[in-house]
Amino acid sequence: MNRIDSLQNPRIKQWKKLQTKKERDKTGTFIVEGFHLVEEALKANVVQQIILSEQADLPANWSVDNTDVFVVTEAISKAISETETPQGVFAVCEKIESNVQLENGKFLLLDGIQDPGNLGTIIRTADAAGITAVILGEGCVDVYNSKVLRSTQGSVFHLPIIKGSLGEWMDKLQQLSIPIYGTALQHAVPYTEVKAPGRFALIVGNEGSGVRPELLEKCDQNLYIPIYGQAESLNVSVATGVLAYYLQSKVDN
Amino acid sequence: MNRIDSLQNPRIKQWKKLQTKKERDKTGTFIVEGFHLVEEALKANVVQQIILSEQADLPANWSVDNTDVFVVTEAISKAISETETPQGVFAVCEKIESNVQLENGKFLLLDGIQDPGNLGTIIRTADAAGITAVILGEGCVDVYNSKVLRSTQGSVFHLPIIKGSLGEWMDKLQQLSIPIYGTALQHAVPYTEVKAPGRFALIVGNEGSGVRPELLEKCDQNLYIPIYGQAESLNVSVATGVLAYYLQSKVDN
Repeated sequence: MNRIDSLQNPRIKQWKKLQTKKERDKTGTFIVEGFHLVEEALKANVVQQIILSEQADLPANWSVDNTDVFVVTEAISKAISETETPQGVFAVCEKIESNVQLENGKFLLLDGIQDPGNLGTIIRTADAAGITAVILGEGCVDVYNSKVLRSTQGSVFHLPIIKGSLGEWMDKLQQLSIPIYGTALQHAVPYTEVKAPGRFALIVGNEGSGVRPELLEKCDQNLYIPIYGQAESLNVSVATGVLAYYLQSKVDN
Repeated sequence: MNRIDSLQNPRIKQWKKLQTKKERDKTGTFIVEGFHLVEEALKANVVQQIILSEQADLPANWSVDNTDVFVVTEAISKAISETETPQGVFAVCEKIESNVQLENGKFLLLDGIQDPGNLGTIIRTADAAGITAVILGEGCVDVYNSKVLRSTQGSVFHLPIIKGSLGEWMDKLQQLSIPIYGTALQHAVPYTEVKAPGRFALIVGNEGSGVRPELLEKCDQNLYIPIYGQAESLNVSVATGVLAYYLQSKVDN
């Protein structure tokens, strides 16, 4: 264990810098906060350093023998934290690019999801619904943003999250004859008309403008969720849940 | 139109007080903010006063002949606002208790939903999914909280939102032979086992602890959403969307 008492220690500046996308991109690392997320990061074998407030305890069941642990003052813990009620535990993690088997996969493609809470909840939902990998397309908020990570509740460590060009991904998936379902209000059918897709790719889009028209044109079929009341639309995380669970239930049957 | 230039005007203090539940309960009024929500409030005929920044314009299609309109300085608008980028338009609205036809209804009962964003998104989802009324049980955050109102995207004005005792509501619904579905991990069946309920009540519960056991015991059947991946659970708004849309699709077929 190492101990840091001074707020001027250069490591602290470095950790705080990881709150910016620029620094995360430069270093290939990111920081997670709170017992649950750090534990999930440890299970995923991506932790480089653990930072622990002197007022917090390392859970006995964590194996951190091969990890640098830094004990810091409560003031330092608060300085690093991006939450209102810090739990006093952080992990610096390595970004890992996963490989994905494309055959027989179930893919969720995200086009311009901008709200961090939505992106995190969508990743959590994709994990629950048995999605093979999430493809983060153009215009999505950075997945390593602290609010996104928190909203994933650890699911960010459970399935591959891959940045890429959605157009190129669609080409690859279509070469494998994986049906791609867009989400749209026009030129679309109710989602319940899809029968037993076996494997699939689903695209959901930006909170305001939806999936870009040029992507919708490339889809095998576009789906909509009927609105029975007076709401204009559904929240994109909720819509993703309804569609992903529906498609998954058809795969199973 | 009336004009207010001074931040010391007592009306401003009164409007700001409506940010507290205590004042909303005392006066039976609440405040909404932004063009979309104010327009929905006007359509619902619940607006008592409109407050407009001198830098904003009333849309030409709003009929406000019978409504008090106060034009205020931009500084006052910012003082009243609870958002980071105020649109400069607000409405003081009257709370209305709606009557609901219980027969043939589809009800969503909420037990201890505490996150304002979740409650708002659930109300929006209930509206979209054709729910007849939402029953706000014990321990839910105040529906007239500004963050809840914002997250409803106007759906708060589209269907009855009724505060009540969930135990008493369950008794009433069961007297009418409306099946009540709880959500639970134990003593529960996959939600896809429900066939054609016709009408129904669905209970979802607190973000951490779920639906209270004493309520689950009273349910006709408890449902769970299968987790195909490694997530521990779904966000409660997403779960509500999956279940409400599933039940609604069975009613339709």
